[in-house]
Amino acid sequence: MAKQKKQPRPKAETPKGFRDYFGAEVSERREMLDAIAGVYHAYGFDALETSAVETVEALGKFLPDVDRPNDGVFAWQEDDDKDAGDWLALRYDLTAPLARVYAQFRNDLPTPYRRYAMGPVWRNEKPGPGRFRQFYQCDADTVGAPNVAADAEICSMLSDTLETVGIPRGDYIVRVNNRKVLNGVMEVAGVLDPSDPDKFIHERGIVLRAIDKLDRLGPEGVRALLGEGRKDESGDFTKGAGLSAEQGEIVMGFMEAKRDCGAATVARLHELVTGSAVGVDGVNELETIAELMAAQGYGSDRVEIDPSVVRGLGYYTGPVFEAELTFEIKDEKGRPRQFGSVAGGGRYDDLVKRFTGQAVPATGISIGVDRLLAALHAKGRLSSVVHGPVVVTVMDKNRMADYQTMVSELRNAGIRAEVYLGNPKNFGNQLKYADKRSSPVAVIQGGDEKERGVVLVKNLKLGEYSSSLVSDNEKWASLPTQREVARSELVNEVRKVMSETTFLIDAEGNIVTEEGRILVPKEFLK
Amino acid sequence: MAKQKKQPRPKAETPKGFRDYFGAEVSERREMLDAIAGVYHAYGFDALETSAVETVEALGKFLPDVDRPNDGVFAWQEDDDKDAGDWLALRYDLTAPLARVYAQFRNDLPTPYRRYAMGPVWRNEKPGPGRFRQFYQCDADTVGAPNVAADAEICSMLSDTLETVGIPRGDYIVRVNNRKVLNGVMEVAGVLDPSDPDKFIHERGIVLRAIDKLDRLGPEGVRALLGEGRKDESGDFTKGAGLSAEQGEIVMGFMEAKRDCGAATVARLHELVTGSAVGVDGVNELETIAELMAAQGYGSDRVEIDPSVVRGLGYYTGPVFEAELTFEIKDEKGRPRQFGSVAGGGRYDDLVKRFTGQAVPATGISIGVDRLLAALHAKGRLSSVVHGPVVVTVMDKNRMADYQTMVSELRNAGIRAEVYLGNPKNFGNQLKYADKRSSPVAVIQGGDEKERGVVLVKNLKLGEYSSSLVSDNEKWASLPTQREVARSELVNEVRKVMSETTFLIDAEGNIVTEEGRILVPKEFLK
Repeated sequence: MAKQKKQPRPKAETPKGFRDYFGAEVSERREMLDAIAGVYHAYGFDALETSAVETVEALGKFLPDVDRPNDGVFAWQEDDDKDAGDWLALRYDLTAPLARVYAQFRNDLPTPYRRYAMGPVWRNEKPGPGRFRQFYQCDADTVGAPNVAADAEICSMLSDTLETVGIPRGDYIVRVNNRKVLNGVMEVAGVLDPSDPDKFIHERGIVLRAIDKLDRLGPEGVRALLGEGRKDESGDFTKGAGLSAEQGEIVMGFMEAKRDCGAATVARLHELVTGSAVGVDGVNELETIAELMAAQGYGSDRVEIDPSVVRGLGYYTGPVFEAELTFEIKDEKGRPRQFGSVAGGGRYDDLVKRFTGQAVPATGISIGVDRLLAALHAKGRLSSVVHGPVVVTVMDKNRMADYQTMVSELRNAGIRAEVYLGNPKNFGNQLKYADKRSSPVAVIQGGDEKERGVVLVKNLKLGEYSSSLVSDNEKWASLPTQREVARSELVNEVRKVMSETTFLIDAEGNIVTEEGRILVPKEFLK
Repeated sequence: MAKQKKQPRPKAETPKGFRDYFGAEVSERREMLDAIAGVYHAYGFDALETSAVETVEALGKFLPDVDRPNDGVFAWQEDDDKDAGDWLALRYDLTAPLARVYAQFRNDLPTPYRRYAMGPVWRNEKPGPGRFRQFYQCDADTVGAPNVAADAEICSMLSDTLETVGIPRGDYIVRVNNRKVLNGVMEVAGVLDPSDPDKFIHERGIVLRAIDKLDRLGPEGVRALLGEGRKDESGDFTKGAGLSAEQGEIVMGFMEAKRDCGAATVARLHELVTGSAVGVDGVNELETIAELMAAQGYGSDRVEIDPSVVRGLGYYTGPVFEAELTFEIKDEKGRPRQFGSVAGGGRYDDLVKRFTGQAVPATGISIGVDRLLAALHAKGRLSSVVHGPVVVTVMDKNRMADYQTMVSELRNAGIRAEVYLGNPKNFGNQLKYADKRSSPVAVIQGGDEKERGVVLVKNLKLGEYSSSLVSDNEKWASLPTQREVARSELVNEVRKVMSETTFLIDAEGNIVTEEGRILVPKEFLK
């Protein structure tokens, strides 16, 4: 033998912040994405699937002076002879690629262009518990429609989508606000100086960030951040926006402007923005959205105007939306808290302009699919019951063809089935395998059964269910968990046993099927 | 206004070798993946979705001396303070991540572990026409099953899958071969020196590459490559494997060993490998696979033994499979040629060993979904007919709520529908939009119709179909392509018109529905 170089073994690990999804986790998400796509499609939205990789330039992350432009994104430089290749990056959302696609294909696409997209996005951020660097987004956007009817449509579609995937009415609320109203309020308060755009954006940013913390800090905390600043429990000081107390109160008044019904909220907002053209414009837009919602029967139990919604992202220019789940779950310390946001979006009119120089109105929503799945699990609305295959065991490895024929028959009858492909020597291992697979039924045919033209069909769920109920080991071993039937009856018997895998105890103490048929007589039980 | 810095506009382009998928392209692929997942699931395979990003170490691409290890993969280095972060890369297939997952979770996963995975993979290769750097794979593998029954199962599953997605029996063939047989033949020919593994692998590689070119070069070309070498049409010389003429004939004899039925091929192979233990072992495995296939009714019209199948990848250690579509298509120059390979795979027993030091038997298949979709299109088995939404046009922008209510009603009745969200001023633009959307039906309600409580429902397909058939413009304008119905009849009428969007010309020359109802009387036509 030639000498072999020893190399250290690679670690079998995902990179930090990445994870794998197994079995039901994959199919549950697939089903949810298909259900969401169904709603989006019914609303006239068309699918778009862009590649995971974009040029850094198109994503809008520009090369800084440092070595690599991977601030927040995963980026690398293309190889070329002169080491001057393009910088490429994984997309960090589905909106930036949409802007690129619309700019690239605007002459071929219909206007307005309604599109939906679903898939993973990547963030080069510090991973933490429950914070992954790859996660799914599921977006719908309308490009080229300036009318707020497009925003209203997004809100009703979001409401329909949540109900379609299994969040009943009353357990969620779609909240709507408008950035223009906030700008108007700040103009009235004398906070914003519209004559200096850079200063304007900077100041507005500080105020937005303060407001965004209302949930966490409460009104007093936000007041402090709007003013001089705030000292937290650890003694750290966060510098505030520097608003006067009076200015701060005007902004706080906006956030607390929500009334019992949309019309009352709109009336209150009109008072607050008196004197600001942009503010009045924003309130009018909210009013139109509220009217469109009401006309289609979407009441304030589904969609409501809520001035406290700001949404973090800087690029929104008009209406903003947020879908919150309103039911309570227990946090890691067992305390009840609202589940919170599962989707958000709004109007952004400047994304395509980067490419074409021409402003293109756009509005849309992004659903956090993984959070929505977590919510359904938390509410017990997604069963975690795994439906394993029927396992045909191998009693004689020279009769593999017989066993494969059995699984063929079962599959042709629409029953998920497989033959045991491990080492068949130890029969106990085969049953352990079936258990690990959550198999409902095992099929057994040894030489004796073969000779007599029969098979044994074993109800694996019944053994599991009754194991703690039977009085002694001897009785457990003799439990009527398996039946012998003619080989030709295999499919029928398996189908029958599969219908006997959920159990009840009847009044007399027998284990019975849901229809009341006795499976284990009470004599067997404790 | 503050002065604004001018930055050059970014180009609206995908990076070279990447592309976007629109509308039906996305949903067709989705449907195919769902159909394939259905078959895999029925066979007892469980879904696995790994992240797109792996460590370069886990992928098995090791840091060379050069700057970046992106030879064939897209790779980058994680930022950390000491610039010693891990190298990460996009997965280049779905097998390497499976090996990592199995090594990482082997104590929790069932053994054997049957898993399927579907998703994009990335190759950092020179893009070319039809060659993309991101494409879909769709894999199923069984890990931990040494028995060739696992390989046989992969073959029958591949056959079932092709028929499920729409390739009828007779239009495809699953070919099976075994690397061990080829090794045995080379041993008999005195080509391989099993005592020196490195030399063994190198020599075998040259022979494999020569055989792999049989399709393209024909037997004479392969003979030349097995011997001294071959000069191609342009005069370029490719050095050969250096086999003697006699050795070359033995290898050629193996490739030409296919007979009319599996048993005859197996008999011929037994002759060829006499004296080589590994060769005999390989032929026995092929024989077992053939028996298992036959016992389950998979005849040689679906799965056949074909010694000319070698599969390029070096890592296969036993049976190899390839699915070919046997029907003819026209190539770019209009010449008929076989469609060719759409799936391939085989047994590889060493991939997990890299991580754990322990050899784990594995076998699997990878389906090229994009090629399979292309095949279905080439055969006209995927209709390219786009089903656009019903478009409710906007005659009065102040009555948006009315129009939104109409689309709500249509959607609630299960009809895909949308309201026109562009500038409604020019009605012609609305119809152009509907045309671009491939809409079957437009709904129109102006002030007059509103007053009378009616709507107009317009059959857009009929106008399109009859435009070339009518005798003059005047008649075309008066074509009965739209009907006025009571507002309350909207849904019923739209449904009725949607059933009237495929047409025939009857014996008398009228345009009629498929049921023979006259839509346009012959008087209107030329």
